[in-house]
Amino acid sequence: MGVDLRSVVPKMNLSSASDYTSIVAITLFVALLCACIVIGHLLEENRWMNESITALAIGLSTGVVILLTSGGTSSHLLLFSEDLFFIYLLPPIIFNAGFQVKKKQFFRNFMTITLFGAVGTLISFVIISLGAIILFKKMNMGSLELGDYLAIGAILSATDSVCTLQVLNQDETPLLYSLVFGEGVVNDATSVVLFNAVQSFDLSHMNPSIALQLIGNFLYLFVTSTLLGVAAGLLSAYIIKKLYFGRHSTDREVAIMILMAYLSYMLAELFFLSGILTVFFCGIVMSHYTWHNVTESSRVTTKHAFATLSFIAEIFIFLYVGMDALDIEKWSVVSDSPGTSVAVSSILLGLVLVGRAAFVFPLSFLSNLTRKSAHEKIGLNQQVTIWWAGLMRGAVSMALAYNQFTKEGHTQLRGNSIMITSTITVVLFSTVVFGLMTKPLVRLLLPSSKQLVRMISSEPVTPKSFIVPLLGHGQDSEADLCSPNMPRPSSLRMLLTTPSRSVHYYWRKFDDAFMRPVFGGRGFVPFVPGSPTERSLHQEQGE
Amino acid sequence: MGVDLRSVVPKMNLSSASDYTSIVAITLFVALLCACIVIGHLLEENRWMNESITALAIGLSTGVVILLTSGGTSSHLLLFSEDLFFIYLLPPIIFNAGFQVKKKQFFRNFMTITLFGAVGTLISFVIISLGAIILFKKMNMGSLELGDYLAIGAILSATDSVCTLQVLNQDETPLLYSLVFGEGVVNDATSVVLFNAVQSFDLSHMNPSIALQLIGNFLYLFVTSTLLGVAAGLLSAYIIKKLYFGRHSTDREVAIMILMAYLSYMLAELFFLSGILTVFFCGIVMSHYTWHNVTESSRVTTKHAFATLSFIAEIFIFLYVGMDALDIEKWSVVSDSPGTSVAVSSILLGLVLVGRAAFVFPLSFLSNLTRKSAHEKIGLNQQVTIWWAGLMRGAVSMALAYNQFTKEGHTQLRGNSIMITSTITVVLFSTVVFGLMTKPLVRLLLPSSKQLVRMISSEPVTPKSFIVPLLGHGQDSEADLCSPNMPRPSSLRMLLTTPSRSVHYYWRKFDDAFMRPVFGGRGFVPFVPGSPTERSLHQEQGE
Repeated sequence: MGVDLRSVVPKMNLSSASDYTSIVAITLFVALLCACIVIGHLLEENRWMNESITALAIGLSTGVVILLTSGGTSSHLLLFSEDLFFIYLLPPIIFNAGFQVKKKQFFRNFMTITLFGAVGTLISFVIISLGAIILFKKMNMGSLELGDYLAIGAILSATDSVCTLQVLNQDETPLLYSLVFGEGVVNDATSVVLFNAVQSFDLSHMNPSIALQLIGNFLYLFVTSTLLGVAAGLLSAYIIKKLYFGRHSTDREVAIMILMAYLSYMLAELFFLSGILTVFFCGIVMSHYTWHNVTESSRVTTKHAFATLSFIAEIFIFLYVGMDALDIEKWSVVSDSPGTSVAVSSILLGLVLVGRAAFVFPLSFLSNLTRKSAHEKIGLNQQVTIWWAGLMRGAVSMALAYNQFTKEGHTQLRGNSIMITSTITVVLFSTVVFGLMTKPLVRLLLPSSKQLVRMISSEPVTPKSFIVPLLGHGQDSEADLCSPNMPRPSSLRMLLTTPSRSVHYYWRKFDDAFMRPVFGGRGFVPFVPGSPTERSLHQEQGE
Repeated sequence: MGVDLRSVVPKMNLSSASDYTSIVAITLFVALLCACIVIGHLLEENRWMNESITALAIGLSTGVVILLTSGGTSSHLLLFSEDLFFIYLLPPIIFNAGFQVKKKQFFRNFMTITLFGAVGTLISFVIISLGAIILFKKMNMGSLELGDYLAIGAILSATDSVCTLQVLNQDETPLLYSLVFGEGVVNDATSVVLFNAVQSFDLSHMNPSIALQLIGNFLYLFVTSTLLGVAAGLLSAYIIKKLYFGRHSTDREVAIMILMAYLSYMLAELFFLSGILTVFFCGIVMSHYTWHNVTESSRVTTKHAFATLSFIAEIFIFLYVGMDALDIEKWSVVSDSPGTSVAVSSILLGLVLVGRAAFVFPLSFLSNLTRKSAHEKIGLNQQVTIWWAGLMRGAVSMALAYNQFTKEGHTQLRGNSIMITSTITVVLFSTVVFGLMTKPLVRLLLPSSKQLVRMISSEPVTPKSFIVPLLGHGQDSEADLCSPNMPRPSSLRMLLTTPSRSVHYYWRKFDDAFMRPVFGGRGFVPFVPGSPTERSLHQEQGE
C-alpha cells in the first residue's frame, strides 16, 4: 500500500521521485539476491566457484548493465555506506560465526589463534606499510603522507573472514577452519586498532611510550570487548531461564536472543570497543547457555535463522562490493594514467602476498616447536593453505579505505583516488582469482581431508599425566581428549599450551559447579522435551 | 569494529558526530525493544494489558524522558519515516499474517470479509468525511479544503490490523479473528485506494464516470495485487521443488522464501499495486505449497522466524508511534488553542465510533440473512466485538496523515497541525483506551469462547445435497465440513455463500489434480522425513 501513495505522488510532487528510485533499487537488489542464491545452488558442486564469487560476478555484470543503460553516469544501485556495512550486515555474520563455531577447537587453539591474529597482523601491517613507503616514494603518487602509507598497511592487513568461511569447511578441515577463522576475528580487531592508531596518534613523535600506549589500548579493547559479549550472552541466558519465556511464546525467546545479540554489538560500538569481538563472544556464550534454555522449536529456529541471516548478509556484501567497484567517479581521475594504477595495484597485491607469508610460516614454525608428535604439527601443506586462505581482502578493507581516503572530500586528489581504486582492484582480484583457486588448492594440498578430520579430532594436546598432578585427583571431564602415552612436553610447549589447557579444565569444573546451575546450559533445563530432533541437534551443535 | 573508527572520529571530524548519534539512538531503541518483550512477557497474564499498549506506554515514557533531558527540543530517537514503516516494518507483519492464517476459515468467510472490508470501509469513509465537513465547517480550522476532509475520512477508515492481531486470539475466537483480520487487510487496500483517489482525482468535477473509474481502479488493484502475490508464492514453490534446495543447504531454502516474499511486496510497490494484498496472498500460497516442499528444519525455522520478525516489527511500530507522539514541533502550533484541538479529536473519535457502527451492524444483519441456523448467525455480542475490535487506529493512519498534512512543508499551517495532532490523539486514545478494554470486553461478551470454537469449527455452511447435484458425483473432499441434514438455503444465502463454496470444491479438485503435482504441497513431497515433530506441525498449520 506504500506504493499506492506513490502512484500519484510522481504526478504531483517531484521531490518524492527519489522514493520511487529507491523502490526500484531495492526491488532489483532483492531480485539479484534471489538470483545469486539460485545460481549459487546450481554451482554448488562446481569445483572452482563459491557463493562469494558468484555474487561478485553478478554484481559486476549488473554494474556494467547499469553503467551502459545510465549512459556511463552511475554503476551502483545503492551508495556504499560504511554504516550499512558495520551496523546492519557485519553483526549477523560474526554473531552467527560465534554461534556455530566448534568451541572445543576454537579454545584448544586459542593461543595459536591469538599469535596469528595479533602478532601476525602486526607483521603484515609493518611489511605492507614499509613496502608501500619504499616503493611508492619513487612513483608520482600525489599527496600521500606518512599516515596514508600506514593506513594502507592497516587496511590491507584485514583479511576477509566472510570469504574464508565460504571456502574452508568446518567439518572437513576443522583445525584450519578454526585457525584461519579465529585469526580473522582477532585480525579484524587488530587492524582496526592499528587503523585508529594511525588516524589518532601523533605520528611525528613516535616513541616507546606511545608504542606502549598502543599495546595497552589493544589489550584493553580485547578484554573489555570480550567481557561485554560474555556479559550480554549470560544476561540473555539468565533472563530466559529465570522468566521461563517458553511458557508463553516461542517467538519471544527468539526475539530476545536476536535483540540482545544485536544490543551487545551496538553497546560495544557505543563504548568505542570492538563490536566484532563482542558479538562473536556473545554468540559463543549464547550457544553454550542460552540456546539450551529455550524450547526445542526455538532451538531449531535460532540455529537456522541466524545462519540464514548471515548467509543473506554475506551475499548482500559481495553483490554490493561487485556493483560498487565499477562506480565511474573513482575511476575517472585514474584513467589518464592507467600504468601507475596497474603498477600500484600489483605492488599492493605483492605486498599482501609477502606480508602474509612473512608471518604464517615463521609463526607456524614457532607453533610447531610446541608440538612434539609429527601428527600434531602444522605441516607445510597446511601452512600453505593457511597462507592462501587468508589472502582474500573484502568489505572491511573497502570500508576502511573509504573512511581514510574519501572522508574529507578528497576523492578528486590523485593519490587518494589511486589508493581507492587500487584497494578495489586488490579486493576484486584477491577474492576472484585467489578465491577461485582455493577450493582446488585445498583439494590438492590436503587430499585426505577425511583422514585429517580423524587426526585432529583425536589430537592429543596435553597428556593426562600432566594435568592430573596439577589438580590432585583423577576426576576430569576431558579424558577423551587426552592420550595417556605422551612424553612430557618441552618448555616452550608448556608455555603455549598449558595455560589454555588447565584453564579449560578449571573452566569445566567452574562451569558445572556454578555457571550451569545459574545460567542453564546443556542438560540442566527441566522442561526440555527429549525428542529425537533435539538429541541430533545437540550433537550437531557440539559443545 | 565500526565503533573503533568512530572512537577517534569525533575528535577529528565533527561531521561524523551524526553517526555517533545514530548509534546512540539505535542502541537505546534496541534496549527498549528488549524491555518491551520482557515486560510484555511479565504482563502476559494481566487481563487488561497487551503488548501494543506496553510498547506504546514505554515509547511515551521514553519520549517524556528525552523531552526533559533535551530541554524540550525533541522527543524521538528516530524521525517518523513513511519509508521505514511501509518498506521494512509492514511487509513482515502482513506476510506472517498470511502465512499463519487459518486458510479454511479465511476462504469460508471470504464474501463476508470482502463485504466488511470494501463496502464497510466505504461507508465509514463517507460518514467520517461528511461528519468532518459538517462539524468542522463551523469551527475556526484554518485552511482546510474539501480534499483534506475526504483525506481525513480515508485516513481514519484504516483500522489497525496489527493491534487487532494482538487482542483477538485465532484459536479462541477463529470466526471473529478471521472476520476482523481479513477485513483489516481488505480495509487497508480500500483506504489506500480512497486516499489515492482523493489526492489524484479532480474532486471539483465529480461525476458518474469518475465514480466508475474509482470502482474499476479498486477492482484492478485487488485482482492484480492478488495475482502477483499468488504468482510469487507459486514461483518460490516451483523453484524449491524443482531445484531440490534441501539437498545442499537448509539456509538457502529459508533465504529464498524470505527474499521472494519480500520481492513480491516490492514488485507490487514498483507497479503501483497494493503491497499489503500481494504479500498477504504470497504468504497464503507459500504456506500451502512452498512450506511443504522444504526440509523439516526449514519448516520449523520459517514458521517461528516469520512470527518473530513480525513480532519485533509490531513492537517496533508501537514503540515508535509512542515516541513520535510527543514530538514538540507539531504541538507548538496547536498549544495556543487547546480547546479546539480537544474538540476536534473528540469529534473525530466519535465519528470513528459511529462510522464503524454504521457498517458493522447493518452488514452483519445482511450476512445473517444468508445463515438459517441460529448457531451460524453473528450474534449481537459478536457484532459488538467486531465493532469494538476494529476501532483501533494505528501506524497506517499515522503514515497517511503525515503524507497528507506535512508533505508540502505545511506543518506550520494551523489546519494541518491540528489534523496531525488530532490523528495522533485518536491513534493513542483508541489504541490505549479501546485496546485496554478489549480483552475484558471479549471475556465479558463471549464468556464461552471454547464453546464458540466448537460451534464454528463444525459450522455447516453448505449442505452436501446442494453441492453434489452440481458436480454429478459423490466424491468430494469436504465431507467433514458439510452437515447432511440442512434445509435448502434461501436465495440471498445462495448468492453470498454458494460461489465461494463451489469455487472451493472445484479448487480442491484442481489443486489435487494439477497444482500439487507441479508445485508440491502437503503430502506430495518425496523427501519429507516423517518425524513426530513434522506431523504435529502439519496439524498446527492447518490447511
